[in-house]
Amino acid sequence: MKGAVLYGPRDVRFEERSTPAITEPTDAIIRISATCVCGSDLWPYRGINPITQPTPMGHEYCGIVEEIGSAVKTIKPGQFVIGSFFASDNSCPHCKAGYQTSCQHREFVTTAQAPILRVPLTDGTLLPTPEVPSANLIPSFLAASDVLGTGWFAASAANVKPGSTAVVVGDGAVGLLGVLSAKQMGAERIIAMSRHEKRQKLAREFGATDIVTERGDEGIARIMEVTKGVGADSVLECVGTQESMMQAIRSTRPGGSVGYVGVPHGVELDGEKLFYSHVHLHGGPAPVRRFLPKLINLIWKEKINPGKVFDLSLPLDQVAEGYRAMDERRAIKALLRP
Amino acid sequence: MKGAVLYGPRDVRFEERSTPAITEPTDAIIRISATCVCGSDLWPYRGINPITQPTPMGHEYCGIVEEIGSAVKTIKPGQFVIGSFFASDNSCPHCKAGYQTSCQHREFVTTAQAPILRVPLTDGTLLPTPEVPSANLIPSFLAASDVLGTGWFAASAANVKPGSTAVVVGDGAVGLLGVLSAKQMGAERIIAMSRHEKRQKLAREFGATDIVTERGDEGIARIMEVTKGVGADSVLECVGTQESMMQAIRSTRPGGSVGYVGVPHGVELDGEKLFYSHVHLHGGPAPVRRFLPKLINLIWKEKINPGKVFDLSLPLDQVAEGYRAMDERRAIKALLRP
Repeated sequence: MKGAVLYGPRDVRFEERSTPAITEPTDAIIRISATCVCGSDLWPYRGINPITQPTPMGHEYCGIVEEIGSAVKTIKPGQFVIGSFFASDNSCPHCKAGYQTSCQHREFVTTAQAPILRVPLTDGTLLPTPEVPSANLIPSFLAASDVLGTGWFAASAANVKPGSTAVVVGDGAVGLLGVLSAKQMGAERIIAMSRHEKRQKLAREFGATDIVTERGDEGIARIMEVTKGVGADSVLECVGTQESMMQAIRSTRPGGSVGYVGVPHGVELDGEKLFYSHVHLHGGPAPVRRFLPKLINLIWKEKINPGKVFDLSLPLDQVAEGYRAMDERRAIKALLRP
Repeated sequence: MKGAVLYGPRDVRFEERSTPAITEPTDAIIRISATCVCGSDLWPYRGINPITQPTPMGHEYCGIVEEIGSAVKTIKPGQFVIGSFFASDNSCPHCKAGYQTSCQHREFVTTAQAPILRVPLTDGTLLPTPEVPSANLIPSFLAASDVLGTGWFAASAANVKPGSTAVVVGDGAVGLLGVLSAKQMGAERIIAMSRHEKRQKLAREFGATDIVTERGDEGIARIMEVTKGVGADSVLECVGTQESMMQAIRSTRPGGSVGYVGVPHGVELDGEKLFYSHVHLHGGPAPVRRFLPKLINLIWKEKINPGKVFDLSLPLDQVAEGYRAMDERRAIKALLRP
């Protein structure tokens, strides 16, 4: 089969890779219905996370089960399944506490930009839809695999409650789905920070009530103005830079919560400033598996349409253009069809 | 009157200060029954927080109301009262959210090591006991003013729940009362980290089930051993150094909570490490006022005896010896009687 391989900065190739097969009795092999490029794929693509050898790419996926290992109990061939970017046993103490991305046996899925994928720890990782979904739902199920689950975790970690005020820092696909998640959790006021017209529009569609275009000190001043000098109850940090993190913390009211899901790059938090901010801080790699049953249900019943973040759809062999379009911010998120 | 004045490193004097009087209609004047030296007073005493001029000291207090301003409604002369180290209006949005130490009109109480104290924002700050308490309860009510309320906040911020495992980093008075607080909140296992025999004993009296004497990597390894490789549900950070903070974070299970109340000195948190730790982080200057009604009730009914942290009691004119004894770790906490 052919799949995506990253060779170095801005050098993604579509080329021959070995077709995966069952290696453990707990594995499943799935035929990918759709995969995509993640915002986090751009870190190595841009050379910020250096790569040392040709590296297969991709950790978001949904598709049809082709084969299962002998120990798999809950998943059957022919089912349409979604899994998180971290395979998890869903039975260790960390999984039971709802932190499947810290599973004691977790395995990162790294080869999903391809037509065929091996998923380990099948029973703890994959969830089936009630039936094979119609094509129009596939982008949304794909989103559940990471970007929706991550936005959802940001909102959950930021403790969004009915009637509360939420701020979303970051207008990438995760931030936009953070808006959708905050709306689902009943936030009354949702302030999206974005200076990109197309993304502002989608943010409003997903439930944003206010758009703030300013950043840094001015951005914080605008949030304070909007919240009458109090600060927001919940702030979703969906970028991962020092500036975005401090913007999030300083926009939060004392006792409020920052949920951070942007993978931190060069972030250093001053303990004393954090102390006097009185915020709650929680985040990390989103335990998508915790939220999948709920998210699959919402999508199946067409209550939400997170698939809208895919504003570019390409055949898998054009994967390099998917990376380029996201790198240049021409696309919010690129869906790839094998 | 005479009170404590800090002149420079290790130079506390008991000397003439002007007797406070009502300056605002919301003020009260109280005659101090007992005051004390705080662990945080040792930062300037040791020269770590430099002081630039002779500085009156003290922020922990309880006593009898002598006089009230014309606007005071809930407090009467003759009542025995306790207040937090931050005066608060208890009506602004931050106070209503339970964060009175971030009150929009907060004022730090800084002159309590004296026989007479002016307290601002009386109605929002002071709470009376049902009657004037007997002398044996005074140390415990004094503890409620800061050190008990701070230990309680550490346990609350660390989300201690019935049946949970809590670790307490720091064996000062706050840490010891963090043990007491975790016990009150129903923790099943309470691990106190201490290498000081007298403090270990008091920790056990307050409810510690385990003592860990190791620190740093070895301390963390011991916590992992005790928790079967999982980490603690709740960790109370009651020191404020880089080492203690990292010890707290690394002892916590993914999804667990660190409650930090030690005023951070030189603490820098690596965003990426924090991200992958999956911990909840919350802390800051303890909003003691939030907990005072409950704490006063527990002490009044003699359900708890936090006053035990005072293992040295001195007349106020020997305040310098109080500082010395705590600095040299001869005393856990020094009570001062005007």
